Amino acid sequence: MANNAQNISQSRPKNIIIMIGDGMGPAYTSGYRYYKDNPETEEVEQTVFDRLLVGMASTYPARVSGYVTDSAAAATALSTGFKSYNGAISVDVEKRQLATLLEKAKALGLSTGVAVSSQVNHATPAAFLTHSESRKNYTEIAERYLDTDADVILGGGQRYFSEELINKFTAKGYQHITEMSQLNSVTTPKVLGLLADVQLPWVINDKQANQLSLLTQKSLELLSQNPNGFVLLVEGSLIDWAGHSNDIATAMAEMDGFAHSIEVVEQFVREQKDTLMIVTADHNTGGLSVGANGEYVWKPEVLHQVKASPDMIAAQAIAAQEWQPIVTNLLGFEPKIQEFATLTNARMQGNEAMAIALRKLIDIYSNTGWTTEGHTGDDVQVFAAGPGAKLFSGHQDNTDIANKIFSLLPSSAQ
Amino acid sequence: MANNAQNISQSRPKNIIIMIGDGMGPAYTSGYRYYKDNPETEEVEQTVFDRLLVGMASTYPARVSGYVTDSAAAATALSTGFKSYNGAISVDVEKRQLATLLEKAKALGLSTGVAVSSQVNHATPAAFLTHSESRKNYTEIAERYLDTDADVILGGGQRYFSEELINKFTAKGYQHITEMSQLNSVTTPKVLGLLADVQLPWVINDKQANQLSLLTQKSLELLSQNPNGFVLLVEGSLIDWAGHSNDIATAMAEMDGFAHSIEVVEQFVREQKDTLMIVTADHNTGGLSVGANGEYVWKPEVLHQVKASPDMIAAQAIAAQEWQPIVTNLLGFEPKIQEFATLTNARMQGNEAMAIALRKLIDIYSNTGWTTEGHTGDDVQVFAAGPGAKLFSGHQDNTDIANKIFSLLPSSAQ
Ligand SMILES: [Zn+2]
Ligand SMILES: [Zn+2]
Repeated sequence: MANNAQNISQSRPKNIIIMIGDGMGPAYTSGYRYYKDNPETEEVEQTVFDRLLVGMASTYPARVSGYVTDSAAAATALSTGFKSYNGAISVDVEKRQLATLLEKAKALGLSTGVAVSSQVNHATPAAFLTHSESRKNYTEIAERYLDTDADVILGGGQRYFSEELINKFTAKGYQHITEMSQLNSVTTPKVLGLLADVQLPWVINDKQANQLSLLTQKSLELLSQNPNGFVLLVEGSLIDWAGHSNDIATAMAEMDGFAHSIEVVEQFVREQKDTLMIVTADHNTGGLSVGANGEYVWKPEVLHQVKASPDMIAAQAIAAQEWQPIVTNLLGFEPKIQEFATLTNARMQGNEAMAIALRKLIDIYSNTGWTTEGHTGDDVQVFAAGPGAKLFSGHQDNTDIANKIFSLLPSSAQ
Repeated sequence: MANNAQNISQSRPKNIIIMIGDGMGPAYTSGYRYYKDNPETEEVEQTVFDRLLVGMASTYPARVSGYVTDSAAAATALSTGFKSYNGAISVDVEKRQLATLLEKAKALGLSTGVAVSSQVNHATPAAFLTHSESRKNYTEIAERYLDTDADVILGGGQRYFSEELINKFTAKGYQHITEMSQLNSVTTPKVLGLLADVQLPWVINDKQANQLSLLTQKSLELLSQNPNGFVLLVEGSLIDWAGHSNDIATAMAEMDGFAHSIEVVEQFVREQKDTLMIVTADHNTGGLSVGANGEYVWKPEVLHQVKASPDMIAAQAIAAQEWQPIVTNLLGFEPKIQEFATLTNARMQGNEAMAIALRKLIDIYSNTGWTTEGHTGDDVQVFAAGPGAKLFSGHQDNTDIANKIFSLLPSSAQ
């Protein structure tokens, strides 16, 4: 143990970046490997997840909420080191506030930031920045961000920030932006970037946009201006949303967007050598499996041909008279007569029914399995690189991840 | 790299034990933790899997078989270091024989053995001991075992070994046993123990029997008589079979039997200090998820109340006139009127339909999810302890596991 403590102090990082793939259970990273595989080559190429894997983590919430966590309790565990009830934003089961990772970092003179693809006041970033009895208190959470003194807040969520609230942020010295094109104009903290009404656009609908990567890159540029170091949260928030919809084509594209953001951070860690990156998931979503229905087959090539998210395909199909060719074109494969009959029926029931029918069709063609539109209690993976990374090897609880990070903060050296 | 090679030679094990939980994907070990959890205590206790986790492995077979492996191709990868087609027993895609781990060990003067809960000539042990173009060649595989010179062969499979074949084994010096009670009479190699017609009994039907643990203990006792060391394969074969049936109560009991066997080996590794143990799965079966159907709940307490395997409950229910109280008693909960109606219907269709209906009921009460009666391509975990264990940290392919083990065999020191 003495030896271990010595190793820690020798390898204490200046900067810490925690990246959360919301809902990204093990099947997502396995599936992503095959999604990225070039079937023309003999080898199956490794992904960034393969390069960085060091361990796994259990995700169960406080006893009162059973064995299956939600994103709020999981983020509370990862941010504070304490289990709480599902829905809790860094408060304990008695609803007392728990010190968060970004609060501790700020108190130590580090810069702090969040860059996410959901609204910035969604459960995960909320539990790193502030406290609330319920993740549903979106307005309260947005208002409380004023007091966090966070240096970087980037993501979606315009609808939750009133003009009055925005004015309070700018009065505190925040640069407020609402367009990705304004990112270049931000050269120093602090920034409040609300780049969409709610979530950022799905990656599948603009694969070139790389929005989360750009937000990650900008966060690193801004936060590394603090000579004391920084703590940054990056969340691939929408992997979970696609998982809730059992939408494999959208999920794999979101995985790609998150993977690119991880590669941005990996490059930073390689160059800076004083930065620890930890990547994990808060829980598993959807009960995804790579293969299903008794067949020993998974066909990711089907997913690459899907040119838009099923909800967008549904919207276009409903708007058009001659909708079948549009669906065939956007799916990338031609549904059979029987399948078109099912789609015709769904189309009459509206956008949501049509999107569900399209997702089910993509599941059939790719042979993808799901067990739930909620979360599951399966363990998630832990990936790490940089000084202190070895601490995260093997099995651990999600609260252990927080406590290990705390042990690496400057304060514990004193 | 030089440093790494030095570490390896310093920590070369005398004995190597590879343990395979057939079909045991990540959800099985997560679920098992909650299955073993005492809900009366504040903490969720760690399992042997949590203690030993070091990494994960990809399981895809040779390109010709896509991304989802069967047990034969997976065992071939783990035993030989080469990918092959689904169904291959340690032959490559051209059907040429590949040197297996136990063949290599035998050639180096080590003792070798297999202890499994399936028939001894099932795919996994077969790929460690011999070669065949198809896993279905059960008779051929049994006959080829004669030439393996293996010191310990323990499991089920009486029906595949003719009297003539048994005589050939005894002529070669094998002690032949057919009852667990005869295990005590075996004090030196070689032994051919065929302890059931096909598979060993389900753990759920006799939780006190601990058969795989006893076979494991006996294997260690016999094999460690060789001063040169040994290589042993232990397989928890029936986890996979329960997974194929989507039978969560039976699967968790098999997990328990396998976990106890791992604990036997863990104890041996602690005491001997010269023994490496590696535990992994060949693939994931059933697309199991801990929680399902949109509810953030998993109820392992339901599974502890199930007193027999669903197929045995079905058999008893079909044999009896007053079957409902029997079902209620053996399930450990009372089905609702509507559920009894479904069971009544299934019962008239025979044993298999009744067993399926019972499994579905247990899934509903425990909120367990499945996506397939086959395998999935999700990565599996890797667990290890003893000299060389660190080699297996992080992500690796299943063929890497074999190649790492080969690097630890005595030959590569010369
Ligand atoms: Zn979620
Ligand atoms: Zn199987």
